[in-house]
Amino acid sequence: MNEASLLDRVRVVLTRTSHPGNIGGAARAMKTMGLSRLVLVNPQVFPSDVATARASGATDVLDHAQVVGSLEAALSGTVFSAAMTARRRELSLPMQWSREAAVTVSGYAAQGDVALVFGNETSGMTNEELALCHLPVMIPTNAEYSSLNLAAAVQILSYEMRMACSELPVAPDGAGAPAGFDEIEGFYGHLEQAMIDSGFHDPANPRKLMPRLRRLFGRVRLEKEEVGILRGILSALQRKVD
Amino acid sequence: MNEASLLDRVRVVLTRTSHPGNIGGAARAMKTMGLSRLVLVNPQVFPSDVATARASGATDVLDHAQVVGSLEAALSGTVFSAAMTARRRELSLPMQWSREAAVTVSGYAAQGDVALVFGNETSGMTNEELALCHLPVMIPTNAEYSSLNLAAAVQILSYEMRMACSELPVAPDGAGAPAGFDEIEGFYGHLEQAMIDSGFHDPANPRKLMPRLRRLFGRVRLEKEEVGILRGILSALQRKVD
Repeated sequence: MNEASLLDRVRVVLTRTSHPGNIGGAARAMKTMGLSRLVLVNPQVFPSDVATARASGATDVLDHAQVVGSLEAALSGTVFSAAMTARRRELSLPMQWSREAAVTVSGYAAQGDVALVFGNETSGMTNEELALCHLPVMIPTNAEYSSLNLAAAVQILSYEMRMACSELPVAPDGAGAPAGFDEIEGFYGHLEQAMIDSGFHDPANPRKLMPRLRRLFGRVRLEKEEVGILRGILSALQRKVD
Repeated sequence: MNEASLLDRVRVVLTRTSHPGNIGGAARAMKTMGLSRLVLVNPQVFPSDVATARASGATDVLDHAQVVGSLEAALSGTVFSAAMTARRRELSLPMQWSREAAVTVSGYAAQGDVALVFGNETSGMTNEELALCHLPVMIPTNAEYSSLNLAAAVQILSYEMRMACSELPVAPDGAGAPAGFDEIEGFYGHLEQAMIDSGFHDPANPRKLMPRLRRLFGRVRLEKEEVGILRGILSALQRKVD
């Protein structure tokens, strides 16, 4: 696959953006690096003249932006997603720095759509949002002042994606086709239900069980066939329970 | 020399900047990457409230900015300077891309002050300005839309300087204590028994089920606590089966 078709598979997802100027700045940043697919999850203000002004000549990116109501909808159909985060969190997946993350993401782009997800300007990503993504990514910043503007963060990641895609992407380890977002979420739903049916999991007293299991299975980057096996085991056990 | 003292030797020089907002954005971009020395050659408007607003928490960079009347003055005392340019020019020195240029510049920073020079937003660097610098630098952009915002260009070069000057710590994986061999084998035995009990797995016709599951969980490098959770789920489901 050539560089342009890999970059065409990259969605830039901005969740709950407060300032429309940052949406325009992100569109411009993307286009300078050859990215074009912008997805907005519940933006506070969009469309907006402020966004259009800041986009400069990249209004086509804004015109084609998709606006959706949830991060799940934004990630539907992707095979891999990376989430920018400014800090380390409890129970999170292993992180990568921006440079190596771009190489990882470009490898998955050879297999299907991928997403780079950016949280709100002030509060960043919620833990729930982060749990939907495969890879937390940090941009190495000054420890005493890490206040990257949102469009600047999009600029750095878009630049790194362009750099990574202009080299031969490193093939991700493992042989099988990666499971898509929807398949993996389907598995988590099934697992949770089986745990409830068996009495192991009480949603009223969740003990961080689902975040822990998401962290476990998130690390493994499940393949399609593996999701099938795991759900087969769960179904067989559930049939016995009934 | 450590990273901080190398970065302290980097001047960011903006010549003939039109929009004070870009000066503020550049200051913020610099500070996020640990750069602090801003030099302004004949800015159209400075100081400016617009610059201060865009600088966010990086007003100290603006407060210490030097304003000078010529690029010669800005470069006085440096041992090396690199100039951003959006296009190749006739009769110019051999150029480098941003990534390799940052490595070159950081090498000279070990010997003395260095400069990254950025031209006017619309017209870029003049040929006369470029002739004062040692190295023309290009950021690899989309050939059809190379309109990088000035602050975005400063962001990318500052990021590359930080990357070139630092040995990044190995990304921590936030892992808990790893499960030992016996714990993991205990889990596989438990899983196999549960699959047999439920009728999903027939040891007489194994369909490579266990090798597939070992490949899956082998990739994840299970932690002690995770083995406990997984076995807890299996036990709960088995109790219902009995």
